[in-house]
Amino acid sequence: MNAPGVTDTRGRIIDTAVRLFTRHSYAGTSLQMIADELSVTKAALYYHFHTREELLTAVVEPVLGPLRTIIEAAEAQRTPHARAEHLLAGYAALAVRNRAVISVLAADPGVTDVLLTQRDLGDLISRQVRLLADVDRGPSGQIKAALVLGGIAVAVAPRLIDLDDDVLLQHLVEAGRRTLGLRTPRRATHNAAPSQTGPP
Amino acid sequence: MNAPGVTDTRGRIIDTAVRLFTRHSYAGTSLQMIADELSVTKAALYYHFHTREELLTAVVEPVLGPLRTIIEAAEAQRTPHARAEHLLAGYAALAVRNRAVISVLAADPGVTDVLLTQRDLGDLISRQVRLLADVDRGPSGQIKAALVLGGIAVAVAPRLIDLDDDVLLQHLVEAGRRTLGLRTPRRATHNAAPSQTGPP
Repeated sequence: MNAPGVTDTRGRIIDTAVRLFTRHSYAGTSLQMIADELSVTKAALYYHFHTREELLTAVVEPVLGPLRTIIEAAEAQRTPHARAEHLLAGYAALAVRNRAVISVLAADPGVTDVLLTQRDLGDLISRQVRLLADVDRGPSGQIKAALVLGGIAVAVAPRLIDLDDDVLLQHLVEAGRRTLGLRTPRRATHNAAPSQTGPP
Repeated sequence: MNAPGVTDTRGRIIDTAVRLFTRHSYAGTSLQMIADELSVTKAALYYHFHTREELLTAVVEPVLGPLRTIIEAAEAQRTPHARAEHLLAGYAALAVRNRAVISVLAADPGVTDVLLTQRDLGDLISRQVRLLADVDRGPSGQIKAALVLGGIAVAVAPRLIDLDDDVLLQHLVEAGRRTLGLRTPRRATHNAAPSQTGPP
C-alpha cells in the first residue's frame, strides 16, 4: 500500500482529470492544465502518470472493470429478456454512479479513438448492444439498443439533468425497458436497480 | 458568389474537418492536421478560416440552422403530442442526414464547451428537451426526452450501426415514439420520417 499522501495525490489527479475532460474533452486537456488546476508541478504529476494515456486508463478502469462484470453476468442469464434486463439495470446504475466518467467514455471521440485500439472497449460495446438487441432481432433491435445505451450515457451527463441519483436511475431504467419492450420485473419494487430477475 | 474553385476548397476543408473531429475530437484536431490531410499549406487554410472556432461554426451551422426551424415549427403545433411528434420526426431526419456533424455537436465536450458560450446551443437544447418532455410532465418526461435526444445522436454515429439511412430513420422514430409514449400518427406515411411498416 502507498503512503496516504501519495494515494491522495493520485486520487486528486484523477478527479481533476475527469472534471477537465468533461469540460474541455480529453484531447483538449493537457497534463500541464491538470498540474495548474492542482497547483502542483508537472514533475509531481509525472511521478504518478507518465503519459496522458496512462492517466486516461486510470480514469476509465474503475468503470470498465465493473462493466465487464455486469456484461458477463448478463450473458449468463437464461432468456433474452433476462439478459437485457440485467444489462440495462446494471449499466444504468453504473452510469448514474459514475456520471462524469461515463460521459467521457461514451461521448468523447478522442477517448474512443484511444480506447478502441488499446483496450477492449470495442468488444464491450458490441456485447452490450447484442445483449439489448437480442430481445427484438433485426435492425429494429439494434437501433433500440444503441438508442438506450447512448441515451443513458448522455442523460447522466452532469450538466443536462439536475435530479437525485435515485430518481434518475429509476426513470432511466423504466424508460429503457419501455424502449426495449421489457416488462417490469416483479421484484423491482424494492430495488432501485434490480439485477436479479427471478423466475418469470 | 465565390468562384467555383474557392467554394470547392471551402467545402473540402469543412468535410475534412468533420471527419477529423469525429475521429480525434474537436480539441484533438489542429488546423495543421486539416491542412496536412488536404495536402495544402496552413496559409491556404487561413484564407478560408482564421481560427478553429470559425471553422467549427461553418461545420455546425448547416445543422443548427435547420434545427432552429424544426424547433420553431414544433413549438407552433397545438398539442403536446403534436409538438413532440414534430420535433422527434424532424430531429431524427436531420440527425440521419448529418450523421457525422450530429455526433460532433451532441457528443464532443470540447464542442459543447465552445458553442454553449458563443452560440444559442444551450437555448436550442432546452427547447428540444421541453418539447419532448411536456408529453409527460415531471422528472420522468425530462429523462425520457434526454434519453431520446441523446440516444438518437449516439445511434447515428457513423461507426456504430451499419444500416441504410431510410431504415435507420424509420426505426429511430419508432423507438423514440415508444420511449415517449407517442402514438404513430396516421399521416406519417408520406412524411420525411415514415412509420410505414408495410406488409412483411
